[in-house]
Amino acid sequence: MRLMLVAGTTRTAAVDGISAAGATPELRWHTPSADAELVRYGRLVRSSFVPVSPTGCPTPALVTRAVVELLGLDVVVCDGGLAKPTGAPTVGFGAKPGHDVRDPDPVPTAPGAFAAAKAFAERLNEDHLVVGETIPGGTTTALATMRALGEPYPVSSSLSDNPLARKEELAEAALAASDLAPGESAHHPELAVRFAGDPVLAVVSGLAVGALESGTRVTLAGGTQMVAASALVRHAGSVAPLELATTSYVADHVDLAPAARDLDLDRTVTDPGFADERLSEYATVGREGAAMGGALALAQRAGALDAVEGRALALLDSLVGDGVSGDTDGDREGTRGP
Amino acid sequence: MRLMLVAGTTRTAAVDGISAAGATPELRWHTPSADAELVRYGRLVRSSFVPVSPTGCPTPALVTRAVVELLGLDVVVCDGGLAKPTGAPTVGFGAKPGHDVRDPDPVPTAPGAFAAAKAFAERLNEDHLVVGETIPGGTTTALATMRALGEPYPVSSSLSDNPLARKEELAEAALAASDLAPGESAHHPELAVRFAGDPVLAVVSGLAVGALESGTRVTLAGGTQMVAASALVRHAGSVAPLELATTSYVADHVDLAPAARDLDLDRTVTDPGFADERLSEYATVGREGAAMGGALALAQRAGALDAVEGRALALLDSLVGDGVSGDTDGDREGTRGP
Repeated sequence: MRLMLVAGTTRTAAVDGISAAGATPELRWHTPSADAELVRYGRLVRSSFVPVSPTGCPTPALVTRAVVELLGLDVVVCDGGLAKPTGAPTVGFGAKPGHDVRDPDPVPTAPGAFAAAKAFAERLNEDHLVVGETIPGGTTTALATMRALGEPYPVSSSLSDNPLARKEELAEAALAASDLAPGESAHHPELAVRFAGDPVLAVVSGLAVGALESGTRVTLAGGTQMVAASALVRHAGSVAPLELATTSYVADHVDLAPAARDLDLDRTVTDPGFADERLSEYATVGREGAAMGGALALAQRAGALDAVEGRALALLDSLVGDGVSGDTDGDREGTRGP
Repeated sequence: MRLMLVAGTTRTAAVDGISAAGATPELRWHTPSADAELVRYGRLVRSSFVPVSPTGCPTPALVTRAVVELLGLDVVVCDGGLAKPTGAPTVGFGAKPGHDVRDPDPVPTAPGAFAAAKAFAERLNEDHLVVGETIPGGTTTALATMRALGEPYPVSSSLSDNPLARKEELAEAALAASDLAPGESAHHPELAVRFAGDPVLAVVSGLAVGALESGTRVTLAGGTQMVAASALVRHAGSVAPLELATTSYVADHVDLAPAARDLDLDRTVTDPGFADERLSEYATVGREGAAMGGALALAQRAGALDAVEGRALALLDSLVGDGVSGDTDGDREGTRGP
């Protein structure tokens, strides 16, 4: 079993009010690079700040890392279009940072990255791949991707109030800019992700299709972005069993049942039962990300779920010296203890 | 503790008769990429052949991987100028493949890679780093680097007959091409490695200097290439304790005592006691590489040395399906079972 974290960026994250994966739009470019370091090392190396939401809620990467340490998981970080340096070792697939989804061709590297990720996963020949993502703005590109495929499912949000109308508006603009009617990319996942998606979706779906084709069990670790990735997998013609593992925070917020039924997904929803207010805030902010849902599912299966909170809090405490970015009024960069 | 494998290339490896790290000069470009996959995953992913010597002796990366599995070591592969795709996740430092050491400026990326590796290791903040290398032709560039620094030590060889006179000739040509007198780069390691070295030496010495400066214990895992890296570390002004861990195959072949004394190195020499002829051939071909000496030292300290041979042979057997390159007459590419 191997945990793959696909980390990348899309300029869509610069749109105001659609993401909490970073204290400010500028800091959001750093979030995937920092998340990759946290999941791989449990500390920052080339990154300067632990990512936080505008309200100061720390990245779910800490929870994933806690599980990695408790279970001794092997982590491979995949470059899904990183924009800032990371000290985590990465596998490359030719993915570059995505442009604004309203550009006519926002992810020109998507078809190549999909193919490279598929070939890699086929050759990797694992028994079980758990694939997570970290990409600020990713639910908006996930929504646009699903609309391009003709899939009707909603997306969740890292913000307490989901700006769903705004995201639908952006998705419509994305399709219009690429001269695509809703559903026109059905059965052409490489077109949907290129013209309406982001580079992380291209790599995640490529890894999943390649793994499934070689008989590897696949768990997509995440919420509605992974529903979009699942849709890409199904539109690529893959009919093998596919698991979606997410948190109760997402499942309580968005009804995943229709997508799970239509896309034939085995749903696993894990409630981490966090009591500390620094982590229980995920119920309303963050909710999922950096493979948290998949990591929690693995912890539960291993009988280690109760140990996750303590480990995540210890990690958070150990990172005070590294700086935790963000402040509650969200209008300037800052460093504060967690 | 973390095992860092620095993998890269130098065009110097195309010089006839100086390297056995690959069945043919063309296949040598692939050796570091394949070694990285073997040490990180225990199998090939993007590479097509298990590297072998022209006589069919398999890469020492198999032995390192055996120890990684036995001890559960964490491996980080560093890109020290790879020329071919690898499926191993890598940390980048800006190193590009080195040119022929007889070019006037064979490693223009060396100073930047040294600085980036130093900064990375400082921030990584480990208790103990074990640093190995894989770069065909690396003993020749190591020799030229030592001559540029004014250090008199010999180098070993991956061939049964060490072409030392040929290497000294190449080192002289390297210095002449760069208008350097022997010893002229003393105390200027960044110049020695740029004008007479290779990109792997730049990254290895940068990692070592950065780690030592942040109080991390450092083991350089290898033979005379690591003596050259140690010389670079000392010429960079670092006086902290430094361990050189290599195999008895190197130590029986080259007297390491003078370098260890002058450069203040703690020498660890491990005899793996291989009985099977596929591995005991390291006594005359290969001898060291891909961190084998350091891995064996770790196995010995953990009381697991006796288990290494069986594990390495099992790995070798499992790789038959992946193809093992090379043939005994060495004049064509081929695939054969080990």
